[in-house]
Parts: sequence; C-alpha cells; structure tokens
Amino acid sequence: MKRILVINPITEDAFNAMTEEYLENFISDEIELEVISIDRGPSSIETFYDESLALPEVLKRVRENKDKFDAIVINCFADPAVHAAREISDIPVVGPAEASMLLALTLGRKFGVISTFRNSGPWIELQVNELGIEDRLAEAAGIEIPVLELGKDLDKTAQHLIEAAQKIIEEKGAEVIVLGCTGMARTAEIIRKKLNIPVVEPLAAAFKMAELLIDLNLVHSKNGLYMKPDTGKINQ
Amino acid sequence: MKRILVINPITEDAFNAMTEEYLENFISDEIELEVISIDRGPSSIETFYDESLALPEVLKRVRENKDKFDAIVINCFADPAVHAAREISDIPVVGPAEASMLLALTLGRKFGVISTFRNSGPWIELQVNELGIEDRLAEAAGIEIPVLELGKDLDKTAQHLIEAAQKIIEEKGAEVIVLGCTGMARTAEIIRKKLNIPVVEPLAAAFKMAELLIDLNLVHSKNGLYMKPDTGKINQ
Amino acid sequence: MKRILVINPITEDAFNAMTEEYLENFISDEIELEVISIDRGPSSIETFYDESLALPEVLKRVRENKDKFDAIVINCFADPAVHAAREISDIPVVGPAEASMLLALTLGRKFGVISTFRNSGPWIELQVNELGIEDRLAEAAGIEIPVLELGKDLDKTAQHLIEAAQKIIEEKGAEVIVLGCTGMARTAEIIRKKLNIPVVEPLAAAFKMAELLIDLNLVHSKNGLYMKPDTGKINQ
Amino acid sequence: MKRILVINPITEDAFNAMTEEYLENFISDEIELEVISIDRGPSSIETFYDESLALPEVLKRVRENKDKFDAIVINCFADPAVHAAREISDIPVVGPAEASMLLALTLGRKFGVISTFRNSGPWIELQVNELGIEDRLAEAAGIEIPVLELGKDLDKTAQHLIEAAQKIIEEKGAEVIVLGCTGMARTAEIIRKKLNIPVVEPLAAAFKMAELLIDLNLVHSKNGLYMKPDTGKINQ
Amino acid sequence: MKRILVINPITEDAFNAMTEEYLENFISDEIELEVISIDRGPSSIETFYDESLALPEVLKRVRENKDKFDAIVINCFADPAVHAAREISDIPVVGPAEASMLLALTLGRKFGVISTFRNSGPWIELQVNELGIEDRLAEAAGIEIPVLELGKDLDKTAQHLIEAAQKIIEEKGAEVIVLGCTGMARTAEIIRKKLNIPVVEPLAAAFKMAELLIDLNLVHSKNGLYMKPDTGKINQ
Amino acid sequence: MKRILVINPITEDAFNAMTEEYLENFISDEIELEVISIDRGPSSIETFYDESLALPEVLKRVRENKDKFDAIVINCFADPAVHAAREISDIPVVGPAEASMLLALTLGRKFGVISTFRNSGPWIELQVNELGIEDRLAEAAGIEIPVLELGKDLDKTAQHLIEAAQKIIEEKGAEVIVLGCTGMARTAEIIRKKLNIPVVEPLAAAFKMAELLIDLNLVHSKNGLYMKPDTGKINQ
Repeated sequence: MKRILVINPITEDAFNAMTEEYLENFISDEIELEVISIDRGPSSIETFYDESLALPEVLKRVRENKDKFDAIVINCFADPAVHAAREISDIPVVGPAEASMLLALTLGRKFGVISTFRNSGPWIELQVNELGIEDRLAEAAGIEIPVLELGKDLDKTAQHLIEAAQKIIEEKGAEVIVLGCTGMARTAEIIRKKLNIPVVEPLAAAFKMAELLIDLNLVHSKNGLYMKPDTGKINQ
Repeated sequence: MKRILVINPITEDAFNAMTEEYLENFISDEIELEVISIDRGPSSIETFYDESLALPEVLKRVRENKDKFDAIVINCFADPAVHAAREISDIPVVGPAEASMLLALTLGRKFGVISTFRNSGPWIELQVNELGIEDRLAEAAGIEIPVLELGKDLDKTAQHLIEAAQKIIEEKGAEVIVLGCTGMARTAEIIRKKLNIPVVEPLAAAFKMAELLIDLNLVHSKNGLYMKPDTGKINQ
Repeated sequence: MKRILVINPITEDAFNAMTEEYLENFISDEIELEVISIDRGPSSIETFYDESLALPEVLKRVRENKDKFDAIVINCFADPAVHAAREISDIPVVGPAEASMLLALTLGRKFGVISTFRNSGPWIELQVNELGIEDRLAEAAGIEIPVLELGKDLDKTAQHLIEAAQKIIEEKGAEVIVLGCTGMARTAEIIRKKLNIPVVEPLAAAFKMAELLIDLNLVHSKNGLYMKPDTGKINQ
Repeated sequence: MKRILVINPITEDAFNAMTEEYLENFISDEIELEVISIDRGPSSIETFYDESLALPEVLKRVRENKDKFDAIVINCFADPAVHAAREISDIPVVGPAEASMLLALTLGRKFGVISTFRNSGPWIELQVNELGIEDRLAEAAGIEIPVLELGKDLDKTAQHLIEAAQKIIEEKGAEVIVLGCTGMARTAEIIRKKLNIPVVEPLAAAFKMAELLIDLNLVHSKNGLYMKPDTGKINQ
Repeated sequence: MKRILVINPITEDAFNAMTEEYLENFISDEIELEVISIDRGPSSIETFYDESLALPEVLKRVRENKDKFDAIVINCFADPAVHAAREISDIPVVGPAEASMLLALTLGRKFGVISTFRNSGPWIELQVNELGIEDRLAEAAGIEIPVLELGKDLDKTAQHLIEAAQKIIEEKGAEVIVLGCTGMARTAEIIRKKLNIPVVEPLAAAFKMAELLIDLNLVHSKNGLYMKPDTGKINQ
Repeated sequence: MKRILVINPITEDAFNAMTEEYLENFISDEIELEVISIDRGPSSIETFYDESLALPEVLKRVRENKDKFDAIVINCFADPAVHAAREISDIPVVGPAEASMLLALTLGRKFGVISTFRNSGPWIELQVNELGIEDRLAEAAGIEIPVLELGKDLDKTAQHLIEAAQKIIEEKGAEVIVLGCTGMARTAEIIRKKLNIPVVEPLAAAFKMAELLIDLNLVHSKNGLYMKPDTGKINQ
C-alpha cells in the first residue's frame, strides 16, 4: 500500500473532506489518501501575498509528514512551496499547475487555462514561462469569481467557466482546457459535458501524477535546481 | 479491467515477449496488457526512412485494435504514427518520446537525452522543438550503437550510456536523463544505480501515462490538430 | 540540361498535367520537368493519416528516380516524406511548406498562411515550430474547403482565400500571405490582384528553390539530422 | 528628500551597517537610506526553502514601512517577496536580480551570472526565464562558497569569482558579468580591476533603479499580474 | 558635476529648447544637460530610410562631443546610431527604445507600445526581437499621426494615444504602456491621468538611465558586439 | 533579359571586377549583371560604425539605379541599407546574410557561421535574432582576419575557416556552414573540398535568391515593416 498526502495550503479545513471525497473518484486500490490543511495563513490563495504567507506553514506540514508518505500533492494551482518541499524531502512533491499543464501538452496543440481573478491570467503566463512551454498556451484568463465563492453555486460557476472556455477555444484556438484553480474540481464534469474537448482538472491530474511517479520510482533531481537546505541556519 | 495495447512498430516479434516481461514490473492489477508487432517494414527504426515505412503497418494495427482496447502505446522513441493514430481512434494513443520528456520536465530544470546514432541528437531536438520545450533540453546525444545491438551486451551498453549521460550532466547541467530509445529499457536499472539523478525510461513512462489518461478519462482533442480522416479516399 | 522531378503524393494522376502546365510558367530554359504520382495511398492529403499512408509510395518513387534527376519536389504542403527522401538520395529534395515559408521570411516581417480545413492551422503551426520560425508567423488558418474541391470553382475558392487573408492582414498584421496547399496554385494570380501584398504560392516556390539549390550545387547535409538508412533491414 | 528602505531578508543584523556603508558610495544628496533586517527566518538565503521561510517576515517589514518610504529594495538576489510586496504597496519595490539583469541587457549582447552554490545556476536560469530574457544569458554558474563565507576572505572570494567569470567570458562569450548574490558587493571593485568588461553589482543596481523609478514617478502596475490582496482573509 | 549630451538626430533645431525644458523636470542637481541637433539629414525619423540618412551626422556629433560629456542620449525611439556610437566612445550611450522597454519589464508582466505610423508596429517588434524580450510584449501599434504633427494639438494627440492604449490594455492585456516616439513626451502627463497604469516616456527614461549608468560607473562592453573601429579606413 | 545590380558598399572599386567574375559562375543566360561600389565611406565593413557611414552612399546608388534593374543585391554580410533600400524601391533588394541563413535552414538542422573578427559572432547572433531563427544556429564565430586581408593568401584564409568550421561542427553539431563575409567567396570551393557538409557562400546565395524572386515575381511587402518614405523632408 502506497500513501499520498494532499496538503490544502489554506486555513479552511472544511475543504479537506471535500477534497478527499473528490479524489476517491480517481484513487487506485493500492493507494491510501490523507488530506490536511494548515493552521495559520490565508483562507484562500489569490495573490502572491496570500501564497507567501502560506509557505512556512505548508513546509511545516511537509517536514512533519515527509517520512510517513510516498508522495505529496500541494492542492493549489499556484503550486505553493512545491520547489522548497522538493528540497527537503526524498519523495515526489507534485503541484497541480505543473502536472495539469504538462498533461495538457499531450492532449492537443494549444491549451487554454481558465482561472479566478484577472490577475491569474498573467500569473499563469508566468508559470507557463517558468515551465518553458509558452509556445503551447492559447490564453490564460480569469472569470472574476473569488475562490471561496466558486462552490456556492456550482452551476453558475460552471456556466461562467464554459463561456470563458468557449471564447478561448473559438478566438485563440485552444484544443484543451485546463481549469486554473483546484477549487473548481466539482465543476469539471458539468463543463466536460458542454465542451467537446478535453478538460484537465488539476487536482486529479496532480494526484494521478503523484501515483505515476511512485509507480515509476521517480523522485525530483537533487543535482541542480534543488539543493538540500542547511536547516540549522533557520532562526525561529 | 482496462486493456492497453503496446505496438512494437517493427517486424521483429522476438521483442514482444521481452516488452511484456519488462512492463509487468509496472503494471497495476486493473490493467491487462497485450504486445504486438507489425508484419512488414523495418526491423528497427533509426532513420526517417525506417519510420516512414513502418507507418501504414502501425496504422493497420491501430485500425484492427482501437475498439478492443482502452489505450495504445506505440513502442518507439520516434513516436511513429502517433499523430495519425490519434486521428483515427477515440482512445488515448501515447508515444514514449512525448511521455518521457514531459515527465522529465517535472523532475528537474534541464534534461538530457541519450540515444543511439549521431542523427538521433538533431532528431530528438526536432521532437523537442515540436513539443515547444527547447528551453528545458540540456542536450540530446547518440552513443553510436545500433538499436538491434543494444541488448547484446547489456553491461557494455549501460556503460556507454552512463558515460554519455555523465558528460551531459557535468558539461551541460542535465539534472534528469531520458533514455532516447525504448530498446534501452533493460539497461535502465543498471544506469540508475550509477547516476544519482532521475533516469526516465520511455516505454515505462508511456505505459503509465496511458494508464493515467485512462484513469482521468482524458482523450486527445479532435478540435484542432487532429481531424477524423475520410478513410474512403484511400486507394489500396 | 538539369532535370527536376515533381512527385504528386496522391493517387489522382489527373493532377499531373495540371501541375506541369502550371510550372511551365516558371521554368527556365535549362530545366526539364517531369511530374508523376503514386499508385496506392490517399487521393488527397488532409490529415496525418492520409500523409502516413502516402509515405512508402512516395519513397518508392524517390528510390526509382533519384539517380535520374538533379532535384526532387514533393508536391504537397505537408512536405510528406521530405526528411526520409533526403536520407536516401544525394540530390536536393524540396518541400513546398519549407520553401515557401522560408521565402516569406524575406518578404516582410510577419506572414500568414491560408489553408484548407481547420486542422491545417495547428498543423502548419507545428511545421513552423519545427522550422523554428514561430516569431514570424502572424496566423495559420483554414477556409473549410476540401483539397479536391479547391479547383471546382476557382473564383469561389479565391474569394474564400482572399477573405481569410484579409482577416489575417488586418487583425494579425500579416505582411505576406503563403497559400497553405499546393492545390491552390491556380488561384494565386486571382488572389494577388486583390491583395496588395506578396502572395507566395508554395509549388512554384519549391520548384524554383530546387532550381536554385541545383545552381548553387547545394545538397542537404548528411552529417546530423539525416543519416543514410540501412535499407537491408526492411522486410517487405 | 526621498527615502529608500533596504530590507535585508535575513536574521543577521550585522550586515545592516555594512549594507549602508556600501550604498553610501552611490547615494545622491536627495536620498535618505535606512537598512533593516528580519527577526525570524534564515541567516542567509541559498535555497527555495530558506527563501520561503523569509517571506512572511519580509512582508511584515513591508507592511510596517510602506507608508514611510518612497521605495523599497529587498536585498537578496532571489528577489524574495518582491511580487507580494508590490501587491501590498503603492511605491516601487525593487529586486536586485531583476534590476541587475535588466541593466546587463543594455551593456552588451550576452551576460553571465556568477553566484554561490551549484543550485544557483538553474535557479538564476529560472529567474531569467521568468523575465523572458533567456536569449541574452551566456551562462549562470556557482563558485561553491556559502553566502556567509563570501566576506571572510574578500581576496579569495574575488579570485574565485574572477576565475568563474573568465571561464564564462571565454567559453560562452559573456560580454557583461552580473554578480549573482548581493553578499558579493564588496568584491565588485576587486573583480572590475581584473576583468575588462562591465561588472554589475546587484545591490547598487537595485538601489539606483529604485531612485530612478522615484524620479520618473513610476510604480508597478496593479492592472494585471499584481492585485491588491484581501488582507482580511489571513488567519494568524 | 556630470554632463549629459542629448542629440536630436534631426535637422529641426526648434526641438532643442523643448527637449531641454522637458528634461529639466527630471534633472538632478549633479547633472548638466546640453541638447544639440544635426545639420543634414531628415527633419523627423519615420522610416529606415530617414534613419539611415541621419546616422553619419549623429556619429559626427558623437565624435565631436564624446570627450566632453559623461554620457550621451540619442533622442529618437529608433535608437539611431546607438550601436555605432558605443563603438567609438568610452562613455554610456543610451537609446530611448532600449531604456524605456527595459524599464517597462520591471513595472508589469506585459507592456504595449503606442507609436506613430502603421510601420512602427513591426519595426518596434523588430527592436523587441533584437532585445530578446518578445515574450513580454503585448502589442506595438501606430496611431497614424506623423511625428511632426504630434505637437500641433497635444490634447488631440493624447486622445488618440489614450484610445490606442486602452485597446491594447483591454484586448491584449498590457499592464504598462511605453510611448513609442520621443516626440510624444509632452503628452505623457495627459495620458497618465487617464490611464491607471504606468506610462513610460522614453526620453525621460533614457535620460535617467544615462544618469544611473554614470552613477554606477558602467559603460558598454567592448568585448563582444562592440569593437573599436579602425577610423583610418573611412574615405570622405 | 533581366538585370541585377550588385552594390559593393565600400569605396574599394578594385573588388567590382572580382565580384563580377565570381558571379559569372552562377549566372543564368537570362540575367545581366552590373557591379558598382560607393564613392565615400568605409573601405570595408567590420563594425556598426563602418556600416553606418556606408548607408547614405548605398542608398544614393539605390536611388540612381532602382528603375533600371529588376533586383538589387547589397554585397556585404551586414546587409547594410537593405531595409531602407526596400522602402524606396519596387524591386527585390536582397542581403547576403538573410539569403544565406534562410537557405541554410533547408540544408540541415543546425547551421554555423564563420566570420572575420570576434565582434562578428554576437553581431551575427543579433541578425539571427532579428530573423527569429535562433533555435537553428549552432554558433557564430570569428577567425580574427580583417576583411581586406582575407584575399591575400587564399589558402591560409581557407585553412583558418576550415579549422573554425570543424570546431563548430564537432563541438556544436553544425550540419551546414555559412561563410559570414562575402569577402570569403573565393575560398568557398577550397573549404567545400575539406568539409563534407554543405557550405553556403552568401554572395552567390543572395544573387540566386534575387533571380528567384524576379522569376516568382515577388517583391517585399509595403504593408507593414516597410513604408515608402517622404523624401521631401531630407535636408542635404
């Protein structure tokens, strides 16, 4: 039995059960799942500021759990603390943005990303540039709904996402749509029924990518970008 | 139970059992595997010419089997017929080059690819440009051993691969190594023991990627690059 | 006297005379032209599937003729079998997409390509990425007319092409238009009269490029991407 | 009189006086300078982990001071918290990596960066990709001296930096050298005397860039990548 | 006291006083400014032809003055003679296009440029490609007002610029606007009041960048792109 | 009969006869050739400064001759005045750098350029970036022989070029070599005999490209980068 930890990098532990329930749809028999959140920090991540305040707490969770699990998923499209978590652990650490956008590359020529606020467009472009896959992005755009309101009316949220996706499909030639926020997971099915192209939901993508890395026995390289930190020099 | 078909795009059916045996190491309980080869064409693929002559036969195998399987893997790093096979089927079709290089992107900043002949360097670069991930490639290089001799002396082959990999790691900063030929699968473990960085073996990568796409219910988009062909206009 | 062979990679030999007649407009006194087609395969190339099935037959034609000609042009914008044909011959092999898009680069800053179906847009983008000239492409788009109907009503076809070109000129800043299918050759003059920018017709471009390479005594490099194949390992 | 705050994102306040003394060499009469450090976090930043733990403390300093200053410089080549600090303030926030690499672009065609550990090479490449200036980077490399030992023997440190720079100049064609750690500031003069090409020291570059932005009355855009955060949703 | 020379690369010396007056708004106490124009050549630069005819005269001014000043700004967005002037002088030579677009990179993710005629769009794109910052450009566009008429009705000119900027902001996601002609300097304030994003005026940007380079004691590298010419081989 | 003018953008008219003689090797029966030089300016072009001083004189030659010829070639790898000459004429104007590097793209995956001084390396890279073909360049390098000495000892010059080319072929994977100075034309045959890869000589390439553009009736677009200048505003 292999164990995957999902860290919700927010203080709202109400989402933990929902996350678990959603991932049960994709889980293999050989995998055990645990979902936890953080004690202090933002209740949702919508800005670099929110993300920054979540990092030390996410890393605390990683330190506490890295020896008890076979892989970790950090459940937010900003991929918060993913680089740092890889430095301090010897198991795969997966971020939903990276995992879902890499999957999108195999599903069609151009992918679009639909996210929450206007700032998420350029932010996702920045992630895309970091990944070095800018030639494949059709467009990243926001629908102007805050993360914490995405779930209030799933049909309305889905409707907004569908309209934004259709615009990118028709005007920019997107062949694949990536949902740009893991808080949109429960709308994925509604959206898929309306759009006749692949829709990549990033939380499920990250979770299965974690499983794949475990199965292939692959862990992030420590011979370049990631270096084991000297934890002795941290002053609390 | 889900079924994955692996097509060896060569006329040497001696490899089928070997392929099956190797993949047994990675297979889930929920997956059934079948490996087949082609009747006419090259005994190995080392040039565009070899690849071209394999295509119609690979596509014949795809046509014959696409309704009996849940995903298809075409077992050659040239990803032969992958685009065309996606056009004529409604299930995921996975190529080892695409799958393994996308995985490499998550495992470190720069990846290197080690393949067979000198021409494979620029060829893989061409594949990398097609994927749009050229910023992440450290180097692609050949070891000047023909595909069909890779397996004759596994230790010697592994030794050559290790030396070529070390050169790319030291001189070009590769943090991850991708084996650039699926005929190198059985050397992967030997190589991993010597290099302390991730080594992605493309056949296993493609096989697990096929499984992942099945699990996520994702199929290649037909709304752009891939269009259902009018098979009526083919004259045999 | 120098001899150029044009291979129509389709089974419709009705086009051979038309191809010859069109190229007579551009031919020098020092060049002799022959146009042939293939026996088996697609009647037109509109998908990767069509292209794949044409390849062995095109290569058969190349094998039969490579020692009797000074250059070969493969008459389809997919540039089918061009890489493989270069491997097995010692004369220039020219593809219309490559030739016409390289010419477009010298005629203005941004070029647009107008082709047949919707899938040709991303397909041409893929070719552009392979060529590494993506910074210069304004847009590639389709007009939704099948190849074999392009010639049925030349004025109507030209009208569709003009409208699609004007859209790319006005909205995407194209300064040069490349026709994205060699089946559009006879519409080129009609289009040129309406658009006041250069229109590159790819068959003529490829034909003259073949002549230029002959005159400069330049043949494709065999010291990298192209390697002479071991034809002994092909099983018929 | 204009006021610039320099935040040392480390817990070693011993560096504050040194920073101030160094910047006195570049300060205009019209500028007042203050240098502060943070209370908790790393004593130096060499990994993503170190950086992550510094962020909330740096942002606390920004919150406390943003209304008392005309610009803020965050004194570390990782540009820690720069994006987030821009979101919560209405004054320019400058990072040394961004400022120095942009300056390098005007001083020659290719620039090289010399930094501390091996991991800084790919990390700086990541920053370069984020900035979108990868065509201009000759190479980023480390000298394997920890940040906190850079100042122990300035001549020895300078000697290592000179050798690493010369290698990049000769082998990779760098025309400009950027020091890849603000802890190298005091070696800059020694290095400049040995290399006959421009050497950009990032702390001074960032400080003068802050002054320039104040003088031109330019502040970072809030109409895209940076959005004012809802600070109410942070749970302490 | 440091001295900066501004060369107006046009024959209209009426602009010299205006240039001086405008720059007084940004000048430090420690800087002395002189503005001169050229004797022969174009009265404004709107084409490569205009620019070409200005070059020898600009370089004559550089030769005459390079030993009397600490930096030179060439006051035109085409950055005419900037490369050549750097070759023959030992002081910083700054071009407004380069300076303003580099500044734009730090102020937001994507910048737009608004310039005079339609041809300035692709021309600025060419400059952007030369700088290697094409990933950051939202769009460059012209407003179809000749340079010499920009100042006739400042409010009308500003109104055209504002409309063009708003289009790029809304449709292309520009977060920063760069004015693409130094003849637009006096409209900058009017435009800033209407757009709530940073507007970079290139003459002021270049002037302050010259000052910054003087303060940091940085001069363009002579170890690569720029080589001291052998002036003996010029025949007058 | 079609007429092509070659302008040697230097004051040494001794080269005119040599240029003519060399091009006779490639000329068709249908083409008439004339070679002229300029009255004032540099005796060779090795820096931006040299180039700048040649421009007005080259453009004078273009103005005098554009109505008497069917195409113009400007015989220098810096492609001096090519953009401006296209603006003022209605016939093709061809530059050797652009023509030869575009041809190189069809002959192999990666091309290398060998030129005169060290500064020509980054300069050619700048041209490559302008063309947008940087993914295809293996390396551009200089051999440290001044233009005017290239012809003094052809065998010695060829020997230097061969050594530089071999280094780029072996170490950087160049499959095609472009000579980076039209003054190297007479060494091309010697070099070709030693290297078993295509060697593109840029003067012949530009000359034949001019012929090809005449034959295809293609002229540079005036609907974007190039705008007809208002010659009335030039003050002599």
